[in-house]
Amino acid sequence: MGTNTVGRLDHVGIAVHDADAAIPYYRDVLGFAVVGDEIAADPGVRLVYLDAGNAFIQLVQPVRDDAPVALWLASHPEGLHHVCFRSDDLGQCERQLNGGPASAIFRAGRGDDAFFLDEEPNNVKIEIVGPRAG
Amino acid sequence: MGTNTVGRLDHVGIAVHDADAAIPYYRDVLGFAVVGDEIAADPGVRLVYLDAGNAFIQLVQPVRDDAPVALWLASHPEGLHHVCFRSDDLGQCERQLNGGPASAIFRAGRGDDAFFLDEEPNNVKIEIVGPRAG
Repeated sequence: MGTNTVGRLDHVGIAVHDADAAIPYYRDVLGFAVVGDEIAADPGVRLVYLDAGNAFIQLVQPVRDDAPVALWLASHPEGLHHVCFRSDDLGQCERQLNGGPASAIFRAGRGDDAFFLDEEPNNVKIEIVGPRAG
Repeated sequence: MGTNTVGRLDHVGIAVHDADAAIPYYRDVLGFAVVGDEIAADPGVRLVYLDAGNAFIQLVQPVRDDAPVALWLASHPEGLHHVCFRSDDLGQCERQLNGGPASAIFRAGRGDDAFFLDEEPNNVKIEIVGPRAG
C-alpha cells in the first residue's frame, strides 16, 4: 500500500481462436494445470488459466465477434497479447496510471476487476487486475 | 526434479530498438527496478531486467544486425517477443521438449543458459532458462 501501485506479474495473455485446441500443449507438454475456465461476458472472452507456479498463462478466446480480442485476431495471428500485473487498489492505480475516472474497469477472470493502461509502451498491452469492488 | 521439467515463469521478453528509451516507462511509471543490464554476445542482444516482484520484464535490444531479434524487429513492430520459464535441468528439459541433442543451448542473461523450444504453440516463442553447465 506504499508508493508503488503495481505489484507482481499476474499472467501473460495469449490470444487464441480455439482454447480447446490450445490447451493440450501447455497442459500436457509444459505440465501446467488448468486452474480456471470461464467466460468474461463484458469483454466477451473465454479465459483459460494455466498455473505456471508463480504466475498464470491465460488463454484468451473471443466468444463474440465484437470482442476486442476478436478484432485483434482479425488483424494478427494468434500469439502473445498482453501482460498483466496485480494491484491492491485498482481504482487508485487506474487514476494514477490512466489519469482519469475509473470508467474503464471491467469484470475480469478469477473474481478480479481489471483495466488496460491507455499507454501501450513499445506496443505492449498492459492489464492491471485487483480485487473486485463492492 | 520430479516429472515436470518446466517450472516457474522467469520473464517476459519485450523486443525494443532502444532499451534506454524504453526503460523509463517500466521503471518510473510502473515502478520496476532495473536489476540487470548486460550484453549476451552470442544471441547478440542487450538484456535489461526489470523486477516485477515474482518475475522479470526483460527488454531485448539487438546489438548486431544479424541477431535473431534484429531480424524479428525488421518485420515486426516493437512488442511482446517471448515468454520464458525456468528449469532445474536444462539439458534434460531440452532433450524432452525439443527431442534432440542439446545443441541449441546458449549463454543467456543473469548467468543462465537457455534454449528456445522448436515448437511455437499459437505462435508463442518459449524460452527455457536454467543453471549454466560446467
